Amino acid sequence: MPELPLQGVRVLDMGQIYNAPYATLLMALSGAEVIKIEPIGGEHLRARGEVSRSHGVPFAMLNSNKKSLAIDVRTPAGREIVVRLTADVDVFVENFRPGAAERLGLGARAMREKYPRLVYASGSGFGQVSALSDVPAMDLTIQAMSGVMSITGFPDRPPVKAGPAVADFSGGIHLYAAIITALLRQRRTGDGAHLDIAMLDSVIPSMASNIGMLYDEVQLPSPRTANRHGGLAVSPYNVYTTTDGFVAIIVVAERHWVSMCELMGMPELCQDPRFATAAARIDHMDEVDELVESWTRTRTRDEVFEKLRRSGVPSGPVRELSDVLADPSLRARGALQDLQHPIYGDVVVPHSPLRFEGEERVPIEASHALGADTRQVLSASLGMTASEIDQLMADGIIR
Amino acid sequence: MPELPLQGVRVLDMGQIYNAPYATLLMALSGAEVIKIEPIGGEHLRARGEVSRSHGVPFAMLNSNKKSLAIDVRTPAGREIVVRLTADVDVFVENFRPGAAERLGLGARAMREKYPRLVYASGSGFGQVSALSDVPAMDLTIQAMSGVMSITGFPDRPPVKAGPAVADFSGGIHLYAAIITALLRQRRTGDGAHLDIAMLDSVIPSMASNIGMLYDEVQLPSPRTANRHGGLAVSPYNVYTTTDGFVAIIVVAERHWVSMCELMGMPELCQDPRFATAAARIDHMDEVDELVESWTRTRTRDEVFEKLRRSGVPSGPVRELSDVLADPSLRARGALQDLQHPIYGDVVVPHSPLRFEGEERVPIEASHALGADTRQVLSASLGMTASEIDQLMADGIIR
Repeated sequence: MPELPLQGVRVLDMGQIYNAPYATLLMALSGAEVIKIEPIGGEHLRARGEVSRSHGVPFAMLNSNKKSLAIDVRTPAGREIVVRLTADVDVFVENFRPGAAERLGLGARAMREKYPRLVYASGSGFGQVSALSDVPAMDLTIQAMSGVMSITGFPDRPPVKAGPAVADFSGGIHLYAAIITALLRQRRTGDGAHLDIAMLDSVIPSMASNIGMLYDEVQLPSPRTANRHGGLAVSPYNVYTTTDGFVAIIVVAERHWVSMCELMGMPELCQDPRFATAAARIDHMDEVDELVESWTRTRTRDEVFEKLRRSGVPSGPVRELSDVLADPSLRARGALQDLQHPIYGDVVVPHSPLRFEGEERVPIEASHALGADTRQVLSASLGMTASEIDQLMADGIIR
Repeated sequence: MPELPLQGVRVLDMGQIYNAPYATLLMALSGAEVIKIEPIGGEHLRARGEVSRSHGVPFAMLNSNKKSLAIDVRTPAGREIVVRLTADVDVFVENFRPGAAERLGLGARAMREKYPRLVYASGSGFGQVSALSDVPAMDLTIQAMSGVMSITGFPDRPPVKAGPAVADFSGGIHLYAAIITALLRQRRTGDGAHLDIAMLDSVIPSMASNIGMLYDEVQLPSPRTANRHGGLAVSPYNVYTTTDGFVAIIVVAERHWVSMCELMGMPELCQDPRFATAAARIDHMDEVDELVESWTRTRTRDEVFEKLRRSGVPSGPVRELSDVLADPSLRARGALQDLQHPIYGDVVVPHSPLRFEGEERVPIEASHALGADTRQVLSASLGMTASEIDQLMADGIIR
């Protein structure tokens, strides 16, 4: 069995909320040692998790397998500890607002001058170098400014956000990707890097279909096509009502349409000039959708899905999140794991989507209590004595 | 100036549509040599791009800086060429349906037996090892089955997909991330890997907020909260109407609310018991939204945004995609680049969101014509003579 892919990689993680913590979660779950540094009161997500479980669970989801240190980096002594800890790591990660790390004395320039091999990774909304870098960036506002909202939802309704935090997490996984890319070079040449990963940049490629539409001569009535194809260029392509929920169906190839007509008991549709070709169906999209729904409407979601599945027609039941979390196939695969969390109780947490088939996976270790590893790390990495640590704790500089 | 991070990395890319091609685009833009192998008629996205520009532009967006070979891998001679080319590369990437590469004789097991150092990367909807691996996976159906649709849209409307192809691209960037992670180990230990990256796994973490909500005792009336906070636990948090569009606004800290009350000319709201605290505002969310909109409704989108920006309140204009593509700050940053494409005309293409601040970027090279590099690669990598290549072309095995 090969060793873990990030074995030997050490990371100092000043990430908060979703963006950077997702990047460092994946590092920890690929075998890196991740030392998470939080303010004395805990980072925002942890602090909010003490008020409601609905924030505690996301904190648990994103902070498995990390060590926890609490340090007040606004104090010179606290900052000094972080600077000294950085000597021993390969990667320093932060997602403060651009400029904030510099003001704390922990900016990229100073750190890289001191440690030329360091991979200094910054996640932000618009980038470190941007005309918009002063604008506070949140998932909602990046969804607004990137165009994601403009293409999501119904033509007769205002723009609406994608439900998942697509901007935060797209930024987070691109941050991870950039870090490992820089590490590959660091191991080869010894060069460090300053990574500047913007959520805004990272979501743009995912709108490729919609961007393509802007180049067609015929423009759509609205950039929002609900569950229809983004360019209204495929039919059937929609979400259809069943007796107990919804099913998504797409016809990618003509053979899928032939199969559907047979399944629906209407083989004659394949000869009907209104429906016989992909182009004809696009011209009669409303009628196609009505025909398909006349079939789905009297059947259950799972019956429709299983029938289409057996015929090889691309389709999927619209599942509630609670269905997804209970999915036995995601558990069998190890994508989701049940955890008795010492702070948040019984929770489901994800393992890394980065799966090395046929290899052992890092066992999930529940997110640590705030400061659980402060003593161990300061003693092991900086050689501090127990009384030095006690003094710093008494002074409120560490916890 | 340090060398490019993926200098010296060679990739054989059998990717199609969005998922794997996005992963290999990022590899090419970080300095890897990417050899894209397509069927004789071109991969789906390229073939569709010949019919309409709306597909051609996405192909151009995702295939910059790759070499193009066309090979009929369903023939023994075609397959043999691919197997021989794999001897010289670090990474083999495919996003066929699970099992299809095996049936072509290009599966992970056979390839890794032959080339133990090879990083064999598979992208798919549900994973190579899954009870659902027979289900054809598309962005729409993964959005349905992952829960993304269930949390997107309006409480009084059916579930709706996120406009961007979040499943395809999340899968694609996780595929990239896994490949580089495996390369880091390959360079260290010589071990290859089989990467099994599922779109479904990859989107689950991005729903952390919504998953958290499932653990609260009070359940929401609908899992869809339109543009409001996913847990209805922050106010103001919404998209508001202006005279000429919409603006997203979030109050993260109390000082933001104080600033807003002053901006809106209603400083007394901060004392009003209905609005004085975060908890009170949540209890009076409809009234808060109405007050905010009474202010935004008579102003332009940009005026509202600039006022909030100067006050440090998180907000963002809801932009159309055409605004985003025309954004000078994205051009200044190099995130978007204008290109005179020899096939698709004047188009805008993204550069990699993986940005190494202060370093040179790989110049964008327009996506190559189908088979543009067949001769050069077969001659340089396999030592084929011109007449051997001519014969294979005459036989329709390569193009």
